[in-house]
Amino acid sequence: MHLMIAGLGLIGGSLALALHPFPGLTLTAIEPDPLTRGEALRLGAVSACWEDAQSAPVEEADMLILCQHPRQAVDFVNAHGLRMKRGSCLSDVCGIKTPLYQAISSLDTPPFAYIGGHPMAGRERGGFANATADLFRGSHYILVPGPAPAPEAERLLRVLMTYAGVADFIVATPQEHDERIAYTSQLMHVLALALCDQHLLSVSQGFEGGSFRGATRVAALDPQLWTDLFWDNRQALCSQISELQEKLDTYRQLLEGDSQEALTRQLTLSSDRKKAFDQVSQLPLTRSPLFR
Amino acid sequence: MHLMIAGLGLIGGSLALALHPFPGLTLTAIEPDPLTRGEALRLGAVSACWEDAQSAPVEEADMLILCQHPRQAVDFVNAHGLRMKRGSCLSDVCGIKTPLYQAISSLDTPPFAYIGGHPMAGRERGGFANATADLFRGSHYILVPGPAPAPEAERLLRVLMTYAGVADFIVATPQEHDERIAYTSQLMHVLALALCDQHLLSVSQGFEGGSFRGATRVAALDPQLWTDLFWDNRQALCSQISELQEKLDTYRQLLEGDSQEALTRQLTLSSDRKKAFDQVSQLPLTRSPLFR
Repeated sequence: MHLMIAGLGLIGGSLALALHPFPGLTLTAIEPDPLTRGEALRLGAVSACWEDAQSAPVEEADMLILCQHPRQAVDFVNAHGLRMKRGSCLSDVCGIKTPLYQAISSLDTPPFAYIGGHPMAGRERGGFANATADLFRGSHYILVPGPAPAPEAERLLRVLMTYAGVADFIVATPQEHDERIAYTSQLMHVLALALCDQHLLSVSQGFEGGSFRGATRVAALDPQLWTDLFWDNRQALCSQISELQEKLDTYRQLLEGDSQEALTRQLTLSSDRKKAFDQVSQLPLTRSPLFR
Repeated sequence: MHLMIAGLGLIGGSLALALHPFPGLTLTAIEPDPLTRGEALRLGAVSACWEDAQSAPVEEADMLILCQHPRQAVDFVNAHGLRMKRGSCLSDVCGIKTPLYQAISSLDTPPFAYIGGHPMAGRERGGFANATADLFRGSHYILVPGPAPAPEAERLLRVLMTYAGVADFIVATPQEHDERIAYTSQLMHVLALALCDQHLLSVSQGFEGGSFRGATRVAALDPQLWTDLFWDNRQALCSQISELQEKLDTYRQLLEGDSQEALTRQLTLSSDRKKAFDQVSQLPLTRSPLFR
């Protein structure tokens, strides 16, 4: 089977490092950066690597995973989607699903079966230099079916991602995905940035512990990628920011009030919500038994 | 040397586990919970343990570290501070420093030398059951001098905490401490709670990654402890909440505006602030060479 990965950044590079030992797999890639191409070949993560989609044998891939920025993935589908082999599979790892879904919906009888994907794994520093084979170990993977059913593509993607270490899969529509990701991911990034905008940051060296590091870690982000992700989902994101501002207001009002008991009641309610969430979402951090 | 720890919760228990092998140290404790007393004795973390301060030989301790909730620490100083040996040392690990500083200031010629302390280490679940010998490894430690100079007490505390794994020390006044902690710790806890109050929490299983876990981890907190910490520092905390709300508003307005370039500029500014902060605050995560 020939798997082609478009984009050897943090996610595409980590996928290549994790998947290249998969039995019977030929793994190739498209990557504009010559240094990254050389490094990926040297490490054996890919057996061939092309500079751009024009020069790559896109028509030979059995499966293609788009690991570029979301707008580049849309451009790729529009420019090269119809070059793909009949019966091949297409997937992606974009952090926002509606734009690509729409691009695929407007293709006239696409030759590929499409299943969208979004690994809930990452780190604040991007690029192949930060890619690791175990990036996906123990993480969730969101599957976002396209406009046409693609059971074989979905099965294949599940097998590959399980091999890469993914712990579990959840299926969502593009709308569900984009709304929930506005909360679980994009809001956390806006928040981390906003926290680092506060005036005390510069005098807080030595005062920070795990809670500060945890909430602000992702602020060291790639501005261009996150501008695109935020912008293309801005309605959902604004609504999450507003809700957070309201919830913060509840705390501020309790602190400005005169009842410690009311504050304790609110803390109990909120911390119980988190404890209940944690009980359900305990993830196995070891690799799935499949393909061990 | 006789070190007495008042309160074998997460912090006091971890300190006992970390410090009991210190050469020449006799480590005892005061702990109301009989199960914890039994477990601490069984593990050899302490050589003796009393139920309360009344029955404990407070007058025999060379150093006493108060590891209780902040208001209990104030009560301890008021009720038992004058029982301490002349020339002994007193410290604490309270997350807010002004109340204890005031209690010590109002004692008439205290027999002990006081140096306040606040380890920047913890976990969301408290109690001796969650205590570990390496809780302090690689963390910051804030030293908050009391109303009278106490160079010997400070030296002793630095030696003990370095042995426990603390990476570096920073000295602050009670006011500086309480203001900065309102930002680096208390705000992160309010935020984690507010995030878990949002309506999408219940449908977000499987959509959460590292950024969500990092920002919400501490929401599973002890409501009574954090009510006290928030309440006794509520002016500083409210001002931090308001500032965060304003910074979030900046992002909301940019997302509601019509300039992606303006959004990218803001993301670049904020992420650069974080990257600069990270460069300075890289902590050695290995144990300090002292007492290796």
